[in-house]
Amino acid sequence: MTDLTSLTAIRAALAAAPAADTAARAGATDRNGQLTKPPGALGRLEDLAIWYAGWAGDARPRIAAPQVLVFAGNHGVAARGVSAFPPEVTMQMVANFRAGGAAINQLSDFAGAQMQVHALDLDTPTADFTQGPAMTGAEVCAAFTTGWNAVDRNADLLVTGEMGIGNTTSAAAIVTALLGGDDWTGRGTGVDDAGLARKQAVIAAGLAANPKRSGLEVLAALGGREVAAMAGAIAGARALRIPVILDGFICCAAALCLQAEEAGALDHCVAGHLSAEGAHARMLEALGKQPLLSLGLRLGEGSGAALAIQVLKGALACHSGMATFAEAGVAAG
Amino acid sequence: MTDLTSLTAIRAALAAAPAADTAARAGATDRNGQLTKPPGALGRLEDLAIWYAGWAGDARPRIAAPQVLVFAGNHGVAARGVSAFPPEVTMQMVANFRAGGAAINQLSDFAGAQMQVHALDLDTPTADFTQGPAMTGAEVCAAFTTGWNAVDRNADLLVTGEMGIGNTTSAAAIVTALLGGDDWTGRGTGVDDAGLARKQAVIAAGLAANPKRSGLEVLAALGGREVAAMAGAIAGARALRIPVILDGFICCAAALCLQAEEAGALDHCVAGHLSAEGAHARMLEALGKQPLLSLGLRLGEGSGAALAIQVLKGALACHSGMATFAEAGVAAG
Repeated sequence: MTDLTSLTAIRAALAAAPAADTAARAGATDRNGQLTKPPGALGRLEDLAIWYAGWAGDARPRIAAPQVLVFAGNHGVAARGVSAFPPEVTMQMVANFRAGGAAINQLSDFAGAQMQVHALDLDTPTADFTQGPAMTGAEVCAAFTTGWNAVDRNADLLVTGEMGIGNTTSAAAIVTALLGGDDWTGRGTGVDDAGLARKQAVIAAGLAANPKRSGLEVLAALGGREVAAMAGAIAGARALRIPVILDGFICCAAALCLQAEEAGALDHCVAGHLSAEGAHARMLEALGKQPLLSLGLRLGEGSGAALAIQVLKGALACHSGMATFAEAGVAAG
Repeated sequence: MTDLTSLTAIRAALAAAPAADTAARAGATDRNGQLTKPPGALGRLEDLAIWYAGWAGDARPRIAAPQVLVFAGNHGVAARGVSAFPPEVTMQMVANFRAGGAAINQLSDFAGAQMQVHALDLDTPTADFTQGPAMTGAEVCAAFTTGWNAVDRNADLLVTGEMGIGNTTSAAAIVTALLGGDDWTGRGTGVDDAGLARKQAVIAAGLAANPKRSGLEVLAALGGREVAAMAGAIAGARALRIPVILDGFICCAAALCLQAEEAGALDHCVAGHLSAEGAHARMLEALGKQPLLSLGLRLGEGSGAALAIQVLKGALACHSGMATFAEAGVAAG
């Protein structure tokens, strides 16, 4: 078990992240050029297969053991009326995840993925970030470490999801702090205009109370335990060379903290989907990622990324299962 | 077995198409409103589940028996240098389909779909449509009937795919005849600029030789056997209330012939993906369909639609598997 007890230790872990296997990637590129299809005719499926092969260290891989990790946390700012749902719903939904009734349960089962839920100190919400940092250094490190250690070293793909009433406010505050400029607020689970205005005011107050600093410092100041745990899991997967499919707005806010801290920290990640949540499209642009799906989801939980596992599996089914021109006796054009 | 021996008989079959089950649809809409998620948070997955429930006649359905039908045909216009591949590749790829080596084999297996390949008189290409109709009435009716009868009445979802060197030229000619106006030509399997110019000239000559008429007449004049068989399968599925996922440019050209003949003929269809082939986006607009996937595929074979089966399965996994607010004891916000 890894114990990352300081932001300095996390930074060192991010800096030590391994690269993809260039030989496997080259082998996959070569194989792709021989498959019985016109060059490029499988579009992004071809790029995905080659990308995955590099991280899997295998020129002809399959996905056999995906893992979905759902982290839940409660937010001090939830008391400020920034969500359409009361804070109790975080715990109620954790019970729903454990009973198998939520969307992410169905999509994990459908993907053949193991799924674990980590409820992070739900009885102790983070501090209200309009008054100062949401988490202490010790708190953010503990949550990050929980995420890091939750990754199964035998998994061959990771999806991280979350649940936390108030966490689109936290995520929008993180993005505003790191990318600045425009309004990054959205309607989350469905707030009305007054709720949206409250979110914007809370974020402005949070930024004023927490002057902008590094990715990890912003994560501590404006994030939540589940956001920090997602960041930890994404980084932990990288240490194991396990590819990651990013989910929507909140997952990408966690990922953005890693990228702000260390360029290239997300090279093992693809964007699973374009969320309907406010500014997710601009966020993906900032991450340099093109989404695999665009179906108007805005649920969180890891749902969009879990559905996107199917796209990646399909890409590898073609890449690793198709015949070559030589094997099939087809003229190569 | 149905035998549609005249265009009049096909027209009558299209006019007799059944509607969706409104009670099942209403039941699915009601259920969707009770599931443990914010209203609308699953985006298009919600609409898809409700649409499918109406055709399945079941408010809480699953997809258990998808079918993929691949039709192959040869085209007289292939002799005019409109493809990057020689006509022999149609037969070679049929052999590859039968041996399990093509992309559509992998994607059908991945979707848990039965797959059949119908090679339609490959030794007798259709007539060169620059000189007159590609098919006689008897020929188009025979191909249409083959497609109609190929649909398994126990299937609960259909994908139709195709193989036919020269068939993007045929498809573009069909769309030009039915929708007019702009240039609908694309690069197919990958022709160069000279090949593209030849396609445009061949299509112009085809239109001059075959004055514009009804959807089925255009199908006969400018289509191919595999295009007619796809149209027949889509219509045959409708007669059985089996929902269809449309594939790319050529499949949609076949579908367009049905819609031109009978408004609403495609109500049981969704668009599986946006192809990278030339004008497919405009074609989907004309069909009034929004694609489920947009991954730059341009392979045909039914590949994009077969991958999109996963999206529909995911939608139904959520719809039919999730707990309601009451079941889970979650506050409904």
